[in-house]
Amino acid sequence: MASIRLAIVGLGKIARDQHLGAIEATDGIELVAVASRHAKLENIHCFHDIADLLAADVDIDAVSLCTPPQGRFEQARAALEAGKHVMLEKPPGATLSEVFALEALAREKGLSLYATWHSRAAAAVEPARALLAERTIRSLSVEWKEDVRHWHPGQAWIWEPGGLGVFDPGINALSIVTRIMPEKFHLVRSDLTFPANRAAPIAASLAFETGSGLPLTAEFDWRQTGPQTWDIRVETEEGQIVLTHGGSRLFVDGQPQIVEEDKEYRNLYRDFVALVAEGRSDTDFSPLMHVADAFMLGRRIQTDAFED
Amino acid sequence: MASIRLAIVGLGKIARDQHLGAIEATDGIELVAVASRHAKLENIHCFHDIADLLAADVDIDAVSLCTPPQGRFEQARAALEAGKHVMLEKPPGATLSEVFALEALAREKGLSLYATWHSRAAAAVEPARALLAERTIRSLSVEWKEDVRHWHPGQAWIWEPGGLGVFDPGINALSIVTRIMPEKFHLVRSDLTFPANRAAPIAASLAFETGSGLPLTAEFDWRQTGPQTWDIRVETEEGQIVLTHGGSRLFVDGQPQIVEEDKEYRNLYRDFVALVAEGRSDTDFSPLMHVADAFMLGRRIQTDAFED
Repeated sequence: MASIRLAIVGLGKIARDQHLGAIEATDGIELVAVASRHAKLENIHCFHDIADLLAADVDIDAVSLCTPPQGRFEQARAALEAGKHVMLEKPPGATLSEVFALEALAREKGLSLYATWHSRAAAAVEPARALLAERTIRSLSVEWKEDVRHWHPGQAWIWEPGGLGVFDPGINALSIVTRIMPEKFHLVRSDLTFPANRAAPIAASLAFETGSGLPLTAEFDWRQTGPQTWDIRVETEEGQIVLTHGGSRLFVDGQPQIVEEDKEYRNLYRDFVALVAEGRSDTDFSPLMHVADAFMLGRRIQTDAFED
Repeated sequence: MASIRLAIVGLGKIARDQHLGAIEATDGIELVAVASRHAKLENIHCFHDIADLLAADVDIDAVSLCTPPQGRFEQARAALEAGKHVMLEKPPGATLSEVFALEALAREKGLSLYATWHSRAAAAVEPARALLAERTIRSLSVEWKEDVRHWHPGQAWIWEPGGLGVFDPGINALSIVTRIMPEKFHLVRSDLTFPANRAAPIAASLAFETGSGLPLTAEFDWRQTGPQTWDIRVETEEGQIVLTHGGSRLFVDGQPQIVEEDKEYRNLYRDFVALVAEGRSDTDFSPLMHVADAFMLGRRIQTDAFED
């Protein structure tokens, strides 16, 4: 079948660092247009925004949204109403209500909606999932600690309502845990640390339980300088399973495992091509639901003002 | 068919003020047991907690949970695992993840789960819903302002994480709006006012939009002394529709309408009897989802400490 003719909306850091190369490397999909307020690409149709893109005489089949989550609903809705398949960067939206509305609209229109979680596509995730399906789990703990000044310099939107603060990286960990855990879980305690001058938290300490009562914990912190930590440890009756480096490396009972080369975004576009071909959607919003629960159930702790 | 043999778990203010009388007045259901740490009823089997209840030699078909939302998941799960139908007071749980897990468990077990919203069963709600289905809506505004010292004296749990603060009454308004609005909507702005010494907000100012862009607003406040306000106003091209007194009175184009006597909890138990008879569940969690969204998207404003 013909390649999916794709438009990217939002040509910021994530689009340039990840999406453009991944699309280039993926069979069955090609970039034909871009909508961006500030940036242009050579040899590609360029538009100011999605309204201009959809009104123009350029044939596209699908739209990949790489804009910040606040305001992504309007773009996704416009694309679906115009009959385009839609791929969403994480998080899929600023609210749960809007992403469930998009899911319903895509179903009604017979279009594919793909709520991506790039960390779920990391190399160690599926091997870990397969191992855990065979083992008896005792507990799981997440440590996700990084330096926001390094990773998000001057990104003001991330500190605004809807930007999620430390949950912007933390939701990556949750997207892995919801994938590898054989059993569903829910939040039982949430301590959120907010800088005095910011709307979003800079740290979060969470405790979850599975339906059968297994304990899970997660520590997210944006104040870590020096070595960065993106680790998930699972204690099982048969030994320890550890994912490090954001899900790209795997250790089983202390032994490093050989996993495939990391290609998160290529996996996402490969999956999107398959979803469109099969007329399916992939809309697991559970990571965002856990984040919403963490805010709703959160105990707020105020800390020093944060300046970039 | 035989009456549903019901047990109530949690014999606090809401159970005594509303549930006991409504069960007594409803055909097809009878109270046979109670689980409560502190209270007993005469001529009814009394247990300390749900574990004792389920372990005992008392035949029950269903459980109605009237305990605070924090901790209700364990009780509901135990009841479903024991093969009992479950009715949940509002809000249905402390997190969205847990209530969706309960929904899945009830489906798996072939049992009825009823997530009740008592304000939805108020007398003016269904007439308003029918009217709005025929009209062209321009906007909707909620004003839900009451005196927390009068309505929740000394109820510490309501200020704790999971107690929801001013969203405990506010979710009643949202349960009505989600029922009467023909179109779904999502949050676009949330300002939350927290007392310096409390984990839950004392006031909230919210703005929503429907998929097609109609504006909805909601003002929740727990600091209102004097007359109390539980009003929903809908501006339509054909005139104004107003629900007052928490959904029990209806005004159409300024004219008061005659609605049936208010019997919220009797309607809930009537519906529960019907759900069990038909082997169905009613699990619309959208009011709780809007509240979670309001916390996640909320801008926090700190105000004076609140003392009971």
